[in-house]
Amino acid sequence: MATLEFWFDFGSNYSYLSAMRIEALAREKKVQVIWKPFLLGVVFKALGWETSPFVLQKIKGDYTCRDMARQCDKYGLPWRQPAAFPRTALLPMRVALVGADQGWIAPFARRMMTMNFAEDRDIDNLEAVSEALAGLGLDAGAIVALALTPDNKLRLRRQTQQAQALHLFGAPSFLSGGELFWGNDRLDDALAHAAGARSLSM
Amino acid sequence: MATLEFWFDFGSNYSYLSAMRIEALAREKKVQVIWKPFLLGVVFKALGWETSPFVLQKIKGDYTCRDMARQCDKYGLPWRQPAAFPRTALLPMRVALVGADQGWIAPFARRMMTMNFAEDRDIDNLEAVSEALAGLGLDAGAIVALALTPDNKLRLRRQTQQAQALHLFGAPSFLSGGELFWGNDRLDDALAHAAGARSLSM
Repeated sequence: MATLEFWFDFGSNYSYLSAMRIEALAREKKVQVIWKPFLLGVVFKALGWETSPFVLQKIKGDYTCRDMARQCDKYGLPWRQPAAFPRTALLPMRVALVGADQGWIAPFARRMMTMNFAEDRDIDNLEAVSEALAGLGLDAGAIVALALTPDNKLRLRRQTQQAQALHLFGAPSFLSGGELFWGNDRLDDALAHAAGARSLSM
Repeated sequence: MATLEFWFDFGSNYSYLSAMRIEALAREKKVQVIWKPFLLGVVFKALGWETSPFVLQKIKGDYTCRDMARQCDKYGLPWRQPAAFPRTALLPMRVALVGADQGWIAPFARRMMTMNFAEDRDIDNLEAVSEALAGLGLDAGAIVALALTPDNKLRLRRQTQQAQALHLFGAPSFLSGGELFWGNDRLDDALAHAAGARSLSM
Protein backbone atom coordinates (compact mmCIF):
# COMPACT_ATOMS: atom_id res chain seq x y z
CA MET A 1 0.00 0.00 0.00
CA ALA A 2 1.19 3.54 -0.72
CA THR A 3 2.29 5.47 2.36
CA LEU A 4 2.63 9.12 3.36
CA GLU A 5 4.61 10.34 6.36
CA PHE A 6 2.79 13.05 8.34
CA TRP A 7 5.19 15.05 10.54
CA PHE A 8 3.45 17.15 13.18
CA ASP A 9 3.56 18.73 16.63
CA PHE A 10 0.50 19.08 18.87
CA GLY A 11 1.41 22.75 19.40
CA SER A 12 1.19 23.59 15.69
CA ASN A 13 -2.12 25.13 14.61
CA TYR A 14 -1.74 24.24 10.93
CA SER A 15 -0.94 20.66 11.99
CA TYR A 16 -4.39 20.69 13.63
CA LEU A 17 -6.03 21.26 10.22
CA SER A 18 -4.19 18.27 8.77
CA ALA A 19 -4.51 15.96 11.78
CA MET A 20 -8.29 16.26 11.74
CA ARG A 21 -8.61 15.58 8.00
CA ILE A 22 -5.76 13.37 6.85
CA GLU A 23 -7.14 9.90 7.64
CA ALA A 24 -10.39 10.41 5.71
CA LEU A 25 -8.58 11.95 2.72
CA ALA A 26 -5.93 9.21 2.73
CA ARG A 27 -8.58 6.47 2.79
CA GLU A 28 -10.16 7.92 -0.38
CA LYS A 29 -6.79 7.69 -2.11
CA LYS A 30 -5.90 4.30 -0.58
CA VAL A 31 -2.83 5.79 1.08
CA GLN A 32 -1.62 4.69 4.52
CA VAL A 33 -0.62 7.53 6.86
CA ILE A 34 2.53 7.13 8.95
CA TRP A 35 2.15 9.57 11.87
CA LYS A 36 5.49 11.14 12.84
CA PRO A 37 5.43 13.31 15.98
CA PHE A 38 8.49 15.55 16.34
CA LEU A 39 9.44 18.51 18.53
CA LEU A 40 8.92 21.56 16.32
CA GLY A 41 10.32 23.90 18.99
CA VAL A 42 13.67 22.10 18.89
CA VAL A 43 13.77 22.49 15.11
CA PHE A 44 12.86 26.19 15.37
CA LYS A 45 15.58 26.84 17.98
CA ALA A 46 18.23 25.16 15.82
CA LEU A 47 17.17 27.51 13.00
CA GLY A 48 17.62 30.50 15.29
CA TRP A 49 13.95 31.12 16.09
CA GLU A 50 13.33 31.26 19.82
CA THR A 51 9.62 30.47 19.37
CA SER A 52 6.98 30.19 16.66
CA PRO A 53 7.32 32.62 13.72
CA PHE A 54 3.69 33.54 14.49
CA VAL A 55 4.88 34.93 17.84
CA LEU A 56 8.15 36.43 16.56
CA GLN A 57 6.32 38.20 13.73
CA LYS A 58 3.20 39.71 15.29
CA ILE A 59 1.77 40.93 11.98
CA LYS A 60 1.87 37.36 10.64
CA GLY A 61 0.53 35.98 13.90
CA ASP A 62 -2.47 38.32 13.79
CA TYR A 63 -3.16 37.24 10.23
CA THR A 64 -2.84 33.58 11.20
CA CYS A 65 -5.61 33.95 13.80
CA ARG A 66 -7.98 35.19 11.11
CA ASP A 67 -6.75 32.62 8.60
CA MET A 68 -7.29 29.76 11.07
CA ALA A 69 -10.86 30.88 11.77
CA ARG A 70 -11.61 30.98 8.06
CA GLN A 71 -9.88 27.67 7.30
CA CYS A 72 -11.71 25.88 10.13
CA ASP A 73 -14.97 27.33 8.85
CA LYS A 74 -14.16 26.03 5.37
CA TYR A 75 -13.31 22.53 6.62
CA GLY A 76 -16.14 22.39 9.15
CA LEU A 77 -13.75 22.12 12.11
CA PRO A 78 -14.28 23.70 15.52
CA TRP A 79 -11.82 26.48 16.43
CA ARG A 80 -11.15 28.54 19.52
CA GLN A 81 -8.14 30.88 19.51
CA PRO A 82 -5.76 29.31 22.07
CA ALA A 83 -5.05 31.56 25.06
CA ALA A 84 -1.51 30.12 25.11
CA PHE A 85 0.50 29.69 21.91
CA PRO A 86 2.48 27.70 21.08
CA ARG A 87 1.47 25.18 23.73
CA THR A 88 4.14 22.71 24.83
CA ALA A 89 3.15 19.10 24.36
CA LEU A 90 6.11 17.01 25.49
CA LEU A 91 4.08 14.41 27.37
CA PRO A 92 1.41 14.02 24.65
CA MET A 93 4.16 13.71 22.02
CA ARG A 94 5.86 10.96 24.01
CA VAL A 95 2.53 9.21 24.42
CA ALA A 96 1.83 9.59 20.71
CA LEU A 97 4.97 7.58 19.94
CA VAL A 98 3.55 4.71 21.97
CA GLY A 99 0.33 5.13 20.04
CA ALA A 100 2.21 4.83 16.77
CA ASP A 101 3.41 1.39 17.90
CA GLN A 102 0.05 0.29 19.27
CA GLY A 103 -2.16 1.60 16.46
CA TRP A 104 -4.19 4.32 18.20
CA ILE A 105 -2.11 7.40 17.37
CA ALA A 106 -4.64 8.89 14.92
CA PRO A 107 -7.65 9.14 17.27
CA PHE A 108 -5.36 10.12 20.16
CA ALA A 109 -3.84 12.92 18.06
CA ARG A 110 -7.27 14.18 17.03
CA ARG A 111 -8.31 14.29 20.69
CA MET A 112 -5.20 16.21 21.82
CA MET A 113 -5.50 18.63 18.90
CA THR A 114 -9.15 19.23 19.73
CA MET A 115 -8.28 19.99 23.35
CA ASN A 116 -5.67 22.54 22.25
CA PHE A 117 -7.39 24.24 19.33
CA ALA A 118 -11.12 23.73 19.87
CA GLU A 119 -11.35 23.66 23.67
CA ASP A 120 -8.40 25.96 24.49
CA ARG A 121 -7.01 23.59 27.11
CA ASP A 122 -3.43 23.03 28.18
CA ILE A 123 -2.39 19.56 27.05
CA ASP A 124 1.08 19.04 28.47
CA ASN A 125 -0.13 17.37 31.65
CA LEU A 126 -1.16 13.99 32.97
CA GLU A 127 -4.85 14.89 33.37
CA ALA A 128 -5.37 15.86 29.71
CA VAL A 129 -3.44 12.87 28.38
CA SER A 130 -5.16 10.41 30.73
CA GLU A 131 -8.57 11.75 29.78
CA ALA A 132 -7.78 11.29 26.09
CA LEU A 133 -6.49 7.76 26.60
CA ALA A 134 -9.41 6.76 28.79
CA GLY A 135 -11.77 8.15 26.15
CA LEU A 136 -10.24 5.65 23.73
CA GLY A 137 -10.74 2.81 26.22
CA LEU A 138 -7.00 2.52 26.87
CA ASP A 139 -5.05 1.90 30.09
CA ALA A 140 -3.70 5.41 30.72
CA GLY A 141 -1.43 4.42 33.61
CA ALA A 142 0.38 1.69 31.71
CA ILE A 143 0.73 3.80 28.57
CA VAL A 144 2.08 6.86 30.38
CA ALA A 145 4.60 4.66 32.20
CA LEU A 146 5.75 3.36 28.83
CA ALA A 147 5.88 6.88 27.40
CA LEU A 148 8.14 8.04 30.23
CA THR A 149 10.78 5.32 29.91
CA PRO A 150 14.26 6.59 28.94
CA ASP A 151 14.04 4.57 25.74
CA ASN A 152 10.85 6.29 24.62
CA LYS A 153 12.14 9.76 25.54
CA LEU A 154 15.25 9.07 23.50
CA ARG A 155 13.08 7.93 20.59
CA LEU A 156 11.31 11.28 20.44
CA ARG A 157 14.65 13.11 20.44
CA ARG A 158 15.88 10.82 17.66
CA GLN A 159 12.73 11.34 15.62
CA THR A 160 13.22 15.10 15.97
CA GLN A 161 16.83 14.73 14.78
CA GLN A 162 15.52 12.72 11.85
CA ALA A 163 13.16 15.59 11.00
CA GLN A 164 16.16 17.92 10.92
CA ALA A 165 18.14 15.51 8.78
CA LEU A 166 15.20 15.52 6.34
CA HIS A 167 15.38 19.36 6.19
CA LEU A 168 12.01 19.90 7.83
CA PHE A 169 11.55 23.49 9.03
CA GLY A 170 7.86 23.62 9.92
CA ALA A 171 4.74 21.62 10.57
CA PRO A 172 2.78 19.97 9.24
CA SER A 173 5.20 18.44 6.77
CA PHE A 174 4.56 15.47 4.52
CA LEU A 175 7.06 13.10 2.96
CA SER A 176 6.32 10.87 0.01
CA GLY A 177 9.14 9.04 -1.74
CA GLY A 178 11.75 11.63 -0.82
CA GLU A 179 9.52 14.59 -1.74
CA LEU A 180 8.90 17.09 1.07
CA PHE A 181 5.61 18.98 1.18
CA TRP A 182 5.23 21.74 3.77
CA GLY A 183 1.99 23.01 5.23
CA ASN A 184 -1.63 21.98 5.42
CA ASP A 185 -2.07 23.67 2.03
CA ARG A 186 0.05 20.90 0.48
CA LEU A 187 -1.82 17.95 2.03
CA ASP A 188 -3.76 17.25 -1.17
CA ASP A 189 -0.63 17.46 -3.34
CA ALA A 190 1.25 15.19 -0.96
CA LEU A 191 -1.54 12.59 -0.99
CA ALA A 192 -1.74 12.76 -4.78
CA HIS A 193 2.01 12.23 -4.95
CA ALA A 194 1.82 9.25 -2.62
CA ALA A 195 -1.08 7.73 -4.56
CA GLY A 196 0.72 8.33 -7.87
CA ALA A 197 3.90 6.72 -6.61
CA ARG A 198 1.81 3.67 -5.71
CA SER A 199 0.24 3.51 -9.19
CA LEU A 200 3.68 3.67 -10.80
CA SER A 201 5.00 0.84 -8.66
CA MET A 202 2.05 -1.48 -9.32
CA MET B 1 -19.49 43.88 -10.24
CA ALA B 2 -17.64 42.20 -7.37
CA THR B 3 -13.98 43.15 -7.08
CA LEU B 4 -10.84 41.63 -5.62
CA GLU B 5 -7.63 43.53 -4.96
CA PHE B 6 -4.49 41.65 -6.02
CA TRP B 7 -1.37 43.02 -4.31
CA PHE B 8 1.88 41.83 -5.90
CA ASP B 9 5.52 42.53 -6.69
CA PHE B 10 7.23 41.37 -9.89
CA GLY B 11 10.08 40.00 -7.78
CA SER B 12 7.81 37.63 -5.81
CA ASN B 13 7.76 34.06 -7.09
CA TYR B 14 4.44 33.14 -5.51
CA SER B 15 2.96 36.31 -7.05
CA TYR B 16 3.97 34.80 -10.40
CA LEU B 17 1.66 31.82 -9.79
CA SER B 18 -1.26 34.16 -9.08
CA ALA B 19 -0.51 36.73 -11.79
CA MET B 20 -0.61 34.05 -14.48
CA ARG B 21 -3.91 32.53 -13.29
CA ILE B 22 -6.00 35.20 -11.62
CA GLU B 23 -7.78 36.76 -14.61
CA ALA B 24 -9.12 33.44 -15.94
CA LEU B 25 -10.26 32.33 -12.48
CA ALA B 26 -11.84 35.70 -11.74
CA ARG B 27 -13.77 35.66 -15.03
CA GLU B 28 -15.32 32.31 -14.07
CA LYS B 29 -16.53 33.85 -10.83
CA LYS B 30 -17.53 37.16 -12.43
CA VAL B 31 -15.09 39.04 -10.21
CA GLN B 32 -13.13 42.08 -11.40
CA VAL B 33 -9.44 42.08 -10.44
CA ILE B 34 -7.91 45.33 -9.21
CA TRP B 35 -4.14 44.95 -9.74
CA LYS B 36 -2.15 46.63 -6.95
CA PRO B 37 1.62 46.73 -7.46
CA PHE B 38 3.58 47.53 -4.29
CA LEU B 39 7.23 47.36 -3.23
CA LEU B 40 7.52 44.18 -1.19
CA GLY B 41 11.17 44.91 -0.34
CA VAL B 42 10.15 48.13 1.43
CA VAL B 43 7.56 46.21 3.45
CA PHE B 44 10.11 43.52 4.34
CA LYS B 45 12.69 46.09 5.46
CA ALA B 46 10.15 47.84 7.70
CA LEU B 47 9.47 44.43 9.31
CA GLY B 48 13.19 43.98 9.95
CA TRP B 49 13.94 41.58 7.10
CA GLU B 50 16.80 42.80 4.93
CA THR B 51 15.67 40.66 1.99
CA SER B 52 13.26 37.85 1.14
CA PRO B 53 12.65 35.27 3.87
CA PHE B 54 13.57 32.70 1.21
CA VAL B 55 17.09 34.16 1.18
CA LEU B 56 17.32 34.81 4.93
CA GLN B 57 16.21 31.25 5.69
CA LYS B 58 18.15 29.04 3.29
CA ILE B 59 16.35 25.85 4.32
CA LYS B 60 13.01 27.45 3.39
CA GLY B 61 14.49 28.90 0.20
CA ASP B 62 15.71 25.49 -0.93
CA TYR B 63 12.27 24.05 -0.28
CA THR B 64 10.65 26.92 -2.17
CA CYS B 65 12.65 26.08 -5.31
CA ARG B 66 11.27 22.56 -5.27
CA ASP B 67 7.77 23.75 -4.36
CA MET B 68 7.73 26.26 -7.23
CA ALA B 69 8.76 23.59 -9.74
CA ARG B 70 5.95 21.32 -8.51
CA GLN B 71 3.35 24.10 -8.39
CA CYS B 72 4.19 25.29 -11.91
CA ASP B 73 3.95 21.71 -13.11
CA LYS B 74 0.52 21.42 -11.46
CA TYR B 75 -0.75 24.65 -13.01
CA GLY B 76 0.87 24.07 -16.41
CA LEU B 77 3.09 27.14 -16.09
CA PRO B 78 6.67 27.40 -17.36
CA TRP B 79 9.35 27.76 -14.66
CA ARG B 80 13.06 28.37 -14.64
CA GLN B 81 14.79 28.91 -11.30
CA PRO B 82 15.86 32.60 -11.41
CA ALA B 83 19.64 33.07 -11.25
CA ALA B 84 18.99 36.27 -9.27
CA PHE B 85 16.44 36.37 -6.45
CA PRO B 86 14.66 38.47 -5.49
CA ARG B 87 14.94 40.56 -8.63
CA THR B 88 14.36 44.30 -8.28
CA ALA B 89 11.57 45.61 -10.46
CA LEU B 90 11.26 49.32 -9.71
CA LEU B 91 10.85 50.42 -13.33
CA PRO B 92 8.36 47.66 -14.25
CA MET B 93 6.36 48.44 -11.08
CA ARG B 94 6.18 52.13 -12.00
CA VAL B 95 5.11 51.19 -15.52
CA ALA B 96 2.51 48.81 -14.12
CA LEU B 97 0.85 51.69 -12.31
CA VAL B 98 0.41 53.46 -15.66
CA GLY B 99 -1.00 50.21 -17.00
CA ALA B 100 -3.53 50.11 -14.18
CA ASP B 101 -4.84 53.49 -15.40
CA GLN B 102 -4.76 52.58 -19.07
CA GLY B 103 -6.20 49.07 -18.84
CA TRP B 104 -3.24 46.89 -19.90
CA ILE B 105 -1.71 46.01 -16.54
CA ALA B 106 -2.77 42.33 -16.62
CA PRO B 107 -1.04 41.32 -19.88
CA PHE B 108 1.95 43.55 -19.04
CA ALA B 109 2.28 41.89 -15.63
CA ARG B 110 2.09 38.41 -17.15
CA ARG B 111 4.87 39.35 -19.60
CA MET B 112 7.18 40.75 -16.89
CA MET B 113 6.52 37.75 -14.65
CA THR B 114 7.29 35.38 -17.52
CA MET B 115 10.60 37.18 -18.20
CA ASN B 116 11.60 36.82 -14.54
CA PHE B 117 10.38 33.33 -13.69
CA ALA B 118 10.20 31.45 -17.00
CA GLU B 119 13.01 33.11 -18.99
CA ASP B 120 15.33 34.00 -16.08
CA ARG B 121 15.87 37.56 -17.35
CA ASP B 122 16.54 40.71 -15.41
CA ILE B 123 13.51 42.96 -15.70
CA ASP B 124 14.49 46.21 -13.97
CA ASN B 125 15.73 47.89 -17.15
CA LEU B 126 14.44 49.86 -20.11
CA GLU B 127 15.04 47.09 -22.64
CA ALA B 128 12.90 44.49 -20.91
CA VAL B 129 10.09 46.92 -20.18
CA SER B 130 10.13 48.38 -23.71
CA GLU B 131 10.05 44.90 -25.23
CA ALA B 132 7.02 43.98 -23.11
CA LEU B 133 5.18 47.20 -23.99
CA ALA B 134 5.99 46.91 -27.70
CA GLY B 135 4.74 43.34 -27.61
CA LEU B 136 1.38 44.70 -26.44
CA GLY B 137 1.36 47.22 -29.33
CA LEU B 138 1.94 50.12 -26.92
CA ASP B 139 4.11 53.26 -27.21
CA ALA B 140 6.95 52.32 -24.89
CA GLY B 141 8.66 55.72 -25.00
CA ALA B 142 5.58 57.69 -23.99
CA ILE B 143 4.61 55.20 -21.30
CA VAL B 144 8.06 55.04 -19.70
CA ALA B 145 8.18 58.86 -19.67
CA LEU B 146 4.85 58.85 -17.82
CA ALA B 147 6.10 56.14 -15.44
CA LEU B 148 9.15 58.23 -14.52
CA THR B 149 7.30 61.42 -13.63
CA PRO B 150 7.65 62.50 -9.96
CA ASP B 151 3.89 62.08 -9.56
CA ASN B 152 3.96 58.46 -10.66
CA LYS B 153 7.01 57.65 -8.53
CA LEU B 154 5.23 59.14 -5.54
CA ARG B 155 2.15 57.08 -6.33
CA LEU B 156 4.09 53.83 -6.06
CA ARG B 157 5.51 54.91 -2.70
CA ARG B 158 2.01 55.81 -1.52
CA GLN B 159 0.58 52.50 -2.69
CA THR B 160 3.35 50.72 -0.76
CA GLN B 161 2.47 52.75 2.34
CA GLN B 162 -1.16 51.76 1.80
CA ALA B 163 -0.10 48.11 1.73
CA GLN B 164 1.58 48.60 5.10
CA ALA B 165 -1.47 50.38 6.49
CA LEU B 166 -3.52 47.34 5.41
CA HIS B 167 -1.12 45.08 7.40
CA LEU B 168 0.24 43.29 4.33
CA PHE B 169 3.44 41.39 5.09
CA GLY B 170 3.95 39.31 1.95
CA ALA B 171 2.92 38.78 -1.65
CA PRO B 172 0.72 37.87 -3.25
CA SER B 173 -1.99 39.24 -0.98
CA PHE B 174 -5.67 39.58 -1.77
CA LEU B 175 -8.22 41.94 -0.25
CA SER B 176 -11.97 41.42 -0.44
CA GLY B 177 -14.27 43.58 1.65
CA GLY B 178 -11.69 44.14 4.38
CA GLU B 179 -10.62 40.47 4.49
CA LEU B 180 -6.93 39.87 3.86
CA PHE B 181 -5.84 36.63 2.19
CA TRP B 182 -2.11 35.89 1.96
CA GLY B 183 -0.40 33.71 -0.59
CA ASN B 184 -1.18 32.03 -3.88
CA ASP B 185 -2.68 29.17 -1.86
CA ARG B 186 -5.51 31.52 -0.79
CA LEU B 187 -6.39 32.78 -4.28
CA ASP B 188 -9.40 30.48 -4.58
CA ASP B 189 -10.67 31.39 -1.11
CA ALA B 190 -10.23 35.09 -1.85
CA LEU B 191 -12.15 34.83 -5.13
CA ALA B 192 -14.91 32.86 -3.44
CA HIS B 193 -15.12 35.54 -0.76
CA ALA B 194 -15.31 38.30 -3.37
CA ALA B 195 -17.97 36.44 -5.36
CA GLY B 196 -19.96 35.73 -2.18
CA ALA B 197 -19.83 39.37 -1.11
CA ARG B 198 -21.26 40.26 -4.51
CA SER B 199 -24.12 37.79 -4.15
CA LEU B 200 -25.01 39.21 -0.74
CA SER B 201 -25.09 42.76 -2.04
CA MET B 202 -27.32 41.98 -5.02
